[in-house]
Amino acid sequence: MKVILYMAISVDGFIAKSNDDTSWISKEEWNSYSQVARNAGALVVGHRTYDILTTQPEFIELKDVKIVVVSNQKDLALKAPNHFLASSPKEALRMFEGAPEVIVAGGGILNASFMSENLVDEMYVDVEPIVFGQGISLCKGGNFEKRLTLLGTKQITDNEIQLHYKVLK
Amino acid sequence: MKVILYMAISVDGFIAKSNDDTSWISKEEWNSYSQVARNAGALVVGHRTYDILTTQPEFIELKDVKIVVVSNQKDLALKAPNHFLASSPKEALRMFEGAPEVIVAGGGILNASFMSENLVDEMYVDVEPIVFGQGISLCKGGNFEKRLTLLGTKQITDNEIQLHYKVLK
Repeated sequence: MKVILYMAISVDGFIAKSNDDTSWISKEEWNSYSQVARNAGALVVGHRTYDILTTQPEFIELKDVKIVVVSNQKDLALKAPNHFLASSPKEALRMFEGAPEVIVAGGGILNASFMSENLVDEMYVDVEPIVFGQGISLCKGGNFEKRLTLLGTKQITDNEIQLHYKVLK
Repeated sequence: MKVILYMAISVDGFIAKSNDDTSWISKEEWNSYSQVARNAGALVVGHRTYDILTTQPEFIELKDVKIVVVSNQKDLALKAPNHFLASSPKEALRMFEGAPEVIVAGGGILNASFMSENLVDEMYVDVEPIVFGQGISLCKGGNFEKRLTLLGTKQITDNEIQLHYKVLK
C-alpha cells in the first residue's frame, strides 16, 4: 500500500491560517484534491480537517471514498456511512488493508504524526500563490527530518504548481 | 529599484531549523544564492543571517557586493568595508538608492518586515528536498497577506526547484 500525503500549501508552507481559514485555496485546487481522493478511494484526515472538509461542496462528490478520521474523541459524530474513526495513524492504515493507495490529507498534526512514524511514501504539495507569514504548518510541530526525491512538477493553473516527492526512508 | 526576496526553503516553508541550522541547504543552492547576490551587487540581511552567512565559504566571493545589515544593535561589529548597518528596511533601501536590484535574503523576521511594509516586488524561493516540521518560517511571525503571480520555475538540480513570483501590491 502506497501512503501519499497530499496538501495545498502557501509558498511559506502553511496549510491554513491560524484560524483554520482555507478560503485562499482555489476552486481548481479543491477539484484536484477531490479528484485525487476519488481516484484513491481512501482518505485519512484529522478531526479539524474533517470538520473543514465537510463544509466544502466538492466533499459531496467523495461519497464513494472511504474516509478514516483519526481522533482520540471516541464519540466523534461521523457524517456518512463511508466514514470511520481510528485512534492512530497505524490503526487508520490497518483499516485500509488491501487498498493500493491511501491519501493523507491533513491537518498539520496528523501529517506530522504520519511523517514522524515513517509511514509516508510520497508527497504532493500544491503551492498556492500566496504568502501570509503565520498559520498551521504542513507538518505542525513535527520533530523529524525526512529527505525527499523530486519525482516531478505539474502546473495546475497559471499560478499554481504541484511538487511531487518520494520520501526517503 | 526592484526589491527581490531570495531564499532557500524546506518543502514545509522553513529557512532554517529552530537552532538556526542551515546545513541541509545544498552547495549548489549556496552557489545560486551567491551568484544572485553578485549579479545584483546589493544585499540586505538581518543580524543573525549576517552571522550565519559569514561562516559560509561562498561569502568571501561577495566582496564586491554592498551588504546592509538591518539591526537595532547600534554597535554591531561589521566584518568588511562593504558592509553597512541600517535600523529599518526602509533605511536599508535608501542606502541602495540608484541600484537597479536589491536582494532581501533573510532571516524570517527581516523578510516579514519587508513583506508587511509592502516593499518586496518579486520573490525567488528555492525549494530544498527536505521536510522537518518546525523551524524558522520564511516570513517568521508576519501578519500580512500577499497574493503572488507565478513568473516561472527553474530546476536548480535534480531535486531542487526554484519558484519565481511577482508580489501583487
